[in-house]
Amino acid sequence: MTDIHFNKEKGSQLKLFTPGPVHVPERVLKEMAKPNDTHRSKPYSEMHQMVAEGLQKLLYTKNECLIFTSSATGIMEACVRNLVNDDEKALFFSIGAFGDRWYEIGVSNGKKSIKQGVEWGKAITSEVAQEALNNDKYSVVFIQANETSTGVYNPINELAPIIKESGVLLCVDATSSMAGVKIEVDKLGIDVCLASVQKCFAVPPGLAVCSVSTAAFEKAEQVKNRGLYFDLIDLKKRHVAKYQTPTTPPIPQIRALTAQLDYILNEEGLDKRFERHEQLAKHTRKWVNEINLEMFPEKGYESNTVSTIKNSLDIDIPKMVSMLLSKGYRIVNGYGQLANKTFRIGHMGEIQIKDLEKMLKVLSEIIDDLK
Amino acid sequence: MTDIHFNKEKGSQLKLFTPGPVHVPERVLKEMAKPNDTHRSKPYSEMHQMVAEGLQKLLYTKNECLIFTSSATGIMEACVRNLVNDDEKALFFSIGAFGDRWYEIGVSNGKKSIKQGVEWGKAITSEVAQEALNNDKYSVVFIQANETSTGVYNPINELAPIIKESGVLLCVDATSSMAGVKIEVDKLGIDVCLASVQKCFAVPPGLAVCSVSTAAFEKAEQVKNRGLYFDLIDLKKRHVAKYQTPTTPPIPQIRALTAQLDYILNEEGLDKRFERHEQLAKHTRKWVNEINLEMFPEKGYESNTVSTIKNSLDIDIPKMVSMLLSKGYRIVNGYGQLANKTFRIGHMGEIQIKDLEKMLKVLSEIIDDLK
Repeated sequence: MTDIHFNKEKGSQLKLFTPGPVHVPERVLKEMAKPNDTHRSKPYSEMHQMVAEGLQKLLYTKNECLIFTSSATGIMEACVRNLVNDDEKALFFSIGAFGDRWYEIGVSNGKKSIKQGVEWGKAITSEVAQEALNNDKYSVVFIQANETSTGVYNPINELAPIIKESGVLLCVDATSSMAGVKIEVDKLGIDVCLASVQKCFAVPPGLAVCSVSTAAFEKAEQVKNRGLYFDLIDLKKRHVAKYQTPTTPPIPQIRALTAQLDYILNEEGLDKRFERHEQLAKHTRKWVNEINLEMFPEKGYESNTVSTIKNSLDIDIPKMVSMLLSKGYRIVNGYGQLANKTFRIGHMGEIQIKDLEKMLKVLSEIIDDLK
Repeated sequence: MTDIHFNKEKGSQLKLFTPGPVHVPERVLKEMAKPNDTHRSKPYSEMHQMVAEGLQKLLYTKNECLIFTSSATGIMEACVRNLVNDDEKALFFSIGAFGDRWYEIGVSNGKKSIKQGVEWGKAITSEVAQEALNNDKYSVVFIQANETSTGVYNPINELAPIIKESGVLLCVDATSSMAGVKIEVDKLGIDVCLASVQKCFAVPPGLAVCSVSTAAFEKAEQVKNRGLYFDLIDLKKRHVAKYQTPTTPPIPQIRALTAQLDYILNEEGLDKRFERHEQLAKHTRKWVNEINLEMFPEKGYESNTVSTIKNSLDIDIPKMVSMLLSKGYRIVNGYGQLANKTFRIGHMGEIQIKDLEKMLKVLSEIIDDLK
């Protein structure tokens, strides 16, 4: 343990175009280094309240917004444990690795879990959803908004009404879309909408957040063996009473999130932010077309926050990633079974069009060399 | 959301003498603000490895040391879910609020949980332990080293051999003692030894760590419904293969921990660090005696990291805490049922004797005013 300062210089130059953790602006990093009082202090409660109220605005909801000391996967597990009784069935729509993970969470927690998948690269359509829901009686439905592995965005605005019509609770994993894509929680009737902060929020990892509907809280009260760490009822109790958490939360990330919510809501503004993410995605797809590559997702369902690109030129992806890294930019290989068959460019958080243009120019030259 | 910089000035002056989160030195805060690569990068794996190897030295163990994106309570839940089969019984020794919490975790996860408590302020003695173990057949025993609520340190060096003799797995919650008190994991046969980093490590909250024995991993493989988020087998797999975690970890806290482990092991040194914590506790107890207060814990079992002090002078504790706060120091009221009957001074992490002396001088004057 001689040199703890590895990557100190490199780190400060490296610009992440990743699907998370993403590039964190200097002003947000500075928030991470501020000294804090304890999690039972008034200054903490003030921060917690600002996060909760900021998230309500961001998600267009009156639902309580809770803070979790976990990654988004922790809240995915919380949904399964709090909302599904052992004698009920849960339906997991999966369009990629994170949909599969949610299903595995269902199975590994001993819940009766049914997976409805589609070929990777495709989205869940209204027809697929309706058919799956007609097949059996479910109590809860789990679905990704944006699937980080395939870069597909489910048509959640069309799917939510169909799913809710069947009388279930609806949990939406918005990990790589919350704060980058408009999600109107109350209008869509989403019972739990969850995300971690190291994606579109551009905050360092270690914190996850979600909105929870009254119906979801009421259901949780009836579910046995919810455990303690992810118990929604206990989390709500502390949140409502004092804007606090039952266990010690990641205060630096919460402080950074207050700064980012302030920036998102009051500086950039929601509409401009969602528009910028749309433009970043369009710009990337235009580049993909120009360089004779192809998008992996089915046309019309491409994500606004991460572009998954088919390796149709048979490029040596690890080499490409490594060459780009030496130029100060990180993009990433495909996820799991999609490694080397695809690669991914993240364009979320505080990435601007001019940043993207610069990086793509360098990447074009590297691809020219490699193809 | 007009002023996100609340407590900015105050925060930088405030000195925490708390039982966690504790005062974080400037050099550690700076680590929190450094830019990081992703959790699938080589620089991350290097940090992860440094933490794992540093913890092995700190805990005198060859056991794998794992990283959790949770508070210590998360690992307490992981122990229950991974190590206790539904047809087995688990024994929870409790000497205060955190012992009670571990028992509640057992119950709320549907495990057959037996609690053996003693009057708050007392420790588990060898006799109490032996008698409890004789009463029934248990598969796992859960116990605190330091109980943060009562300020009692269980005689873990005497208890561990007795507990292990009964053939169980032994889980020790060392949350407020790890890195402040010597715990020889391999010598004592501790199967899981866990802590969060916002106590004796003096790192901001949002990260928890533990050592896990081979026997514990082997047991976990046989336990059903372990869930996914806290699955020890999955965590071990990623850790051994690549020094990574299955889900995105709190990288800033991990970076800060590498810096602190380097400082603890190579700058201050373990023996000096444990000795300093002992001296801080002795100094506090001497002050308690001089000011005509009394320690809450039974004599001989007082914690080296947090002093729980009986309110024998009938002081207005909230007023005392508030007056001290206005002088730039935070101590805290008693925990839960001990509020106003006791108060607590934390002396862990990087607190030095001269810091403690300064604070106690100010506190003495306030108590003189109030009594």
